[in-house]
Amino acid sequence: MGRVTSLLTDQYELTMLRSALQSGTADRHAVFEVFGRRLPDGRRYGVVAGTGRLLEALEHFRFDESVLAYLREREIVDERTAAWLADYRFGGDIWGYPEGECYFPGSPILVVEGTFAEAVLLETLALSILNHDTAIASAASRMVVAAADRPIIEMGSRRTHERAALASARSAYLAGFASTSNLEAGRLYDIPTRGTSAHSFTLLHDTEQAAFEAQVAALGAGTTLLVDTYDVHAGVAAAVEAAGPSLGAVRIDSGDLLMLAHDVRAQLDSLGATKTRIVVSGDLDEYAIASLRAAPVDAYGVGTSVVTGSGAPTAELVYKLVARSESSDASSPMVGVAKRSAGKPTHKGRKWSLRRLDENDIATGEVISTRSVPEGDANDRPLLVQFVKAGEVIWTEPLSAARERHARSLAELPPTALKLSRGEPALHTTYEDS
Amino acid sequence: MGRVTSLLTDQYELTMLRSALQSGTADRHAVFEVFGRRLPDGRRYGVVAGTGRLLEALEHFRFDESVLAYLREREIVDERTAAWLADYRFGGDIWGYPEGECYFPGSPILVVEGTFAEAVLLETLALSILNHDTAIASAASRMVVAAADRPIIEMGSRRTHERAALASARSAYLAGFASTSNLEAGRLYDIPTRGTSAHSFTLLHDTEQAAFEAQVAALGAGTTLLVDTYDVHAGVAAAVEAAGPSLGAVRIDSGDLLMLAHDVRAQLDSLGATKTRIVVSGDLDEYAIASLRAAPVDAYGVGTSVVTGSGAPTAELVYKLVARSESSDASSPMVGVAKRSAGKPTHKGRKWSLRRLDENDIATGEVISTRSVPEGDANDRPLLVQFVKAGEVIWTEPLSAARERHARSLAELPPTALKLSRGEPALHTTYEDS
Repeated sequence: MGRVTSLLTDQYELTMLRSALQSGTADRHAVFEVFGRRLPDGRRYGVVAGTGRLLEALEHFRFDESVLAYLREREIVDERTAAWLADYRFGGDIWGYPEGECYFPGSPILVVEGTFAEAVLLETLALSILNHDTAIASAASRMVVAAADRPIIEMGSRRTHERAALASARSAYLAGFASTSNLEAGRLYDIPTRGTSAHSFTLLHDTEQAAFEAQVAALGAGTTLLVDTYDVHAGVAAAVEAAGPSLGAVRIDSGDLLMLAHDVRAQLDSLGATKTRIVVSGDLDEYAIASLRAAPVDAYGVGTSVVTGSGAPTAELVYKLVARSESSDASSPMVGVAKRSAGKPTHKGRKWSLRRLDENDIATGEVISTRSVPEGDANDRPLLVQFVKAGEVIWTEPLSAARERHARSLAELPPTALKLSRGEPALHTTYEDS
Repeated sequence: MGRVTSLLTDQYELTMLRSALQSGTADRHAVFEVFGRRLPDGRRYGVVAGTGRLLEALEHFRFDESVLAYLREREIVDERTAAWLADYRFGGDIWGYPEGECYFPGSPILVVEGTFAEAVLLETLALSILNHDTAIASAASRMVVAAADRPIIEMGSRRTHERAALASARSAYLAGFASTSNLEAGRLYDIPTRGTSAHSFTLLHDTEQAAFEAQVAALGAGTTLLVDTYDVHAGVAAAVEAAGPSLGAVRIDSGDLLMLAHDVRAQLDSLGATKTRIVVSGDLDEYAIASLRAAPVDAYGVGTSVVTGSGAPTAELVYKLVARSESSDASSPMVGVAKRSAGKPTHKGRKWSLRRLDENDIATGEVISTRSVPEGDANDRPLLVQFVKAGEVIWTEPLSAARERHARSLAELPPTALKLSRGEPALHTTYEDS
């Protein structure tokens, strides 16, 4: 992944740099924060994702000769700015919520501290990655809750940008999905992959029976046969005929899944295929998954709804300057700043936060302070960790660690958080302003 | 862009290949089509986009040693399949609607013809690219219609995946946007780029006036000053003070844009800045743009709504096998095939299509035939062009050509097509089945 990421940037970041270099404000110390003003409509919690990808992209955030040539030629930068960019390497500090952590309105998901010049350049890259990945993880987590202990296969690559598909598979796995259909996601992120056949494979053959026999010959009786190309019940009969009662699974991709699951279970059992699992797919979202809770379904395949954030394709996180040095004198103190916004709560100054837990380790609220780490009770949990120190990435973890963190963070929330119905954020955020 | 694209693929395509190689059906001749069963809810037309990116990705669709090692290690393919993949190069033909063309339910946007084995592998890549890019172009086109002759700047990179942002900028430009904020999109696709400053730049300085003076010193009086960090009217006064009456533009990113635009125009005029333009941004979509039609606005900045497809983040196009050879004998005739689907119209067989035009060159319908090119009147317009011939990409055009095609295709539609209100597809599709 040695690709330059520095141009995944909005032009205004470079023109602001240019202006700030000119006015002598470029080196003012600055704190930018990434946060969401609200959760997507009706959601009760969000799930942080993308930080690992952002830290990797940060390491490739350099302005090489070809990039600088483009910027000069288009007169986006002047010579002075180009020279500054040629030496660019982020040298500040970054803190944030580690991936998998649940978040709420105002949570300081990412805190970037450095000179204005070095920190302003990361705005678009940070927001693109965090907004996308967080949106997908937040939707995926609700589907995992709806599915209870049944596994979900992410199969939405075809319904999103080909590279966003990889990040979607990663976010879905982080949030608790069991596997993905996407091979590159499997390779890049070590996610289990799944997939056996589509309707086209059945249509390619002279009969459904011939298709099933071909698949079993190649992939073994443990495979999953897709039984709804023609008639589901004839398909199930042909599937057991082809694979025998040790058939691994059948997949149903259309029709009334609730009714079909019951009927197919009975049919499989009557054919002696009592261990054959039933996988359902086809326009499932968290509500459809929940509606199948009482059905004899063993696994879900979810596509469009997860890769599009189930109605909320972006987390709408923002990257805002919240503090800066009072003057261009390096020793000047920091002051909190904010745009004046009607109806948008603004809290100036750098923030710390913790999750307040009761004696049973159930979360009761989120506390945000601008006075360094808020004073917590014994089992309150600080939320910020340091990712980057003086420009060095000091945080790395396998995706499985983020997945486990999400399970823990979710288990800690009050039960109302897990309701799929529209509601308020499950935790209230209180500010301890200095 | 020499990156391998072959793993941007769902696993089932490779397991189908493996099964088909085993059963002797892999070399059956096959026709797959990409089409949408419907337009997004209430939309009156869609806009094809992504084909140029797909053809480029196709050239890198190879299975190299590292890819094959992964597939073997995970036992996704057997040795025979791995050997077949090592030599893979798509050798068939591809036709489709060129980018910028308007499409309707059933339009055969892409037609892939080859052996089953070589064509089935392209399913996910083709759908990912076309579903994403078409969704964005389709939303963007409505915004361009709503903006009439006023330019729109695409500035949504931060609200979508960092690479999807590049494709979004490309699709928006293709649909008629004037420029993008994204620098890499500007470089890759030769799209004009725009951007000057954010609220953080004003907040960095001791006063708004100081920030404006810094920006004008660096970027000249022709720049765009962002005037809504504190009070818009004080901001406008400070802007003209800093730049003089030749100030290029002011941008308003929040508040009641309709009222503010009128007030700011009057204020600018009273200050002698009669040529200073007004740019508005901040959660604009096609409806908000339309509501500003009577306001003295000179340009729009659009972010979230365009990169998320304005409520329809995927075009929901599908890739379906519609015909195959009757048997594995190479000389056998083709037969149409389709899954049995309740409520989903299926039309078997390879398709051709044309746009039916009246004597004034206004489109009156779309005609699709499975009998080769339908018989049209003199000024009917065939819609399919050939992109790939025996594996060679024979179609390439600059993005500007697609942009011009979209303007022509849109101009040809009946006036009802341009209404933003929910409605039926503007053209009815008729089938001339053989």
